[in-house]
Amino acid sequence: MTREELMRRAIELSIENVAKGGGPFGAVIAKDGEIIATGVNRVTASCDPTAHAEVSAIRAATSKLKTFNLSGCEIYTSCEPCPMCLGAIYWARLDKIYYGNNKTDAKHIGFDDSFIYDELSLKPANRKLPASILLPKEAIKAFEAWTNKENKQIY
Amino acid sequence: MTREELMRRAIELSIENVAKGGGPFGAVIAKDGEIIATGVNRVTASCDPTAHAEVSAIRAATSKLKTFNLSGCEIYTSCEPCPMCLGAIYWARLDKIYYGNNKTDAKHIGFDDSFIYDELSLKPANRKLPASILLPKEAIKAFEAWTNKENKQIY
Repeated sequence: MTREELMRRAIELSIENVAKGGGPFGAVIAKDGEIIATGVNRVTASCDPTAHAEVSAIRAATSKLKTFNLSGCEIYTSCEPCPMCLGAIYWARLDKIYYGNNKTDAKHIGFDDSFIYDELSLKPANRKLPASILLPKEAIKAFEAWTNKENKQIY
Repeated sequence: MTREELMRRAIELSIENVAKGGGPFGAVIAKDGEIIATGVNRVTASCDPTAHAEVSAIRAATSKLKTFNLSGCEIYTSCEPCPMCLGAIYWARLDKIYYGNNKTDAKHIGFDDSFIYDELSLKPANRKLPASILLPKEAIKAFEAWTNKENKQIY
């Protein structure tokens, strides 16, 4: 399939998902022009705030290929990924992102992508969501255990 | 439970998870001092690059409470959330974050949290992961369908 055909499939999924009661988002993960897996936004339907189209597609693709590393694959998403999904795309090692709508379009229909991008660009102390450090001297013991462990699976 | 006790539980989970072959990360979601759910890093074990401790804890908590909105709850995580997890925490509407290790500690033991934070702070065109806009005039139709839909569940 061409890039346009792959994106059109992601867009179709996003439109179909509105009719099914989900959010207006769809994604396709492809390798060498073939679809590996798809995903749609199922946040409200599945009571899972992480079930965005991209995260759902990544989970489906890694489950199908039995790997946590999708290098060599590309993601076609109907909307620019939010910070959560962009982070997931980095962790999944995807090669490239194609997107249709952007975060400003998403803001105009009531989604918080743009707000979260703004928050992440602030220093932690200036964010609306407060964060505090607690027991760092105890927490570091897990990292020491990781460092000392032999035969660990690094990713 | 006190804040320190809740964080100590997250740290215990992170240390136990290393012994079990997972990454050195654990998280607890609590409401009014009671644990709602916990999570550990199962990226390699479950072939899921999104299965960080915080995302896993959020999914477990929302599944248990049958809601996609965790306002009123706090998250105690053994390490500062990466951008994916921080985004998930915003989407879940958690009230506050407590963390032990930070992203620099994570970098020192080989995890990419710091790199992804750096990437997100760049303009998209300057990131190592390329992104292109494709078919925006077709993609916007899903947002129009969403706008025109009645009785939709907004989140």
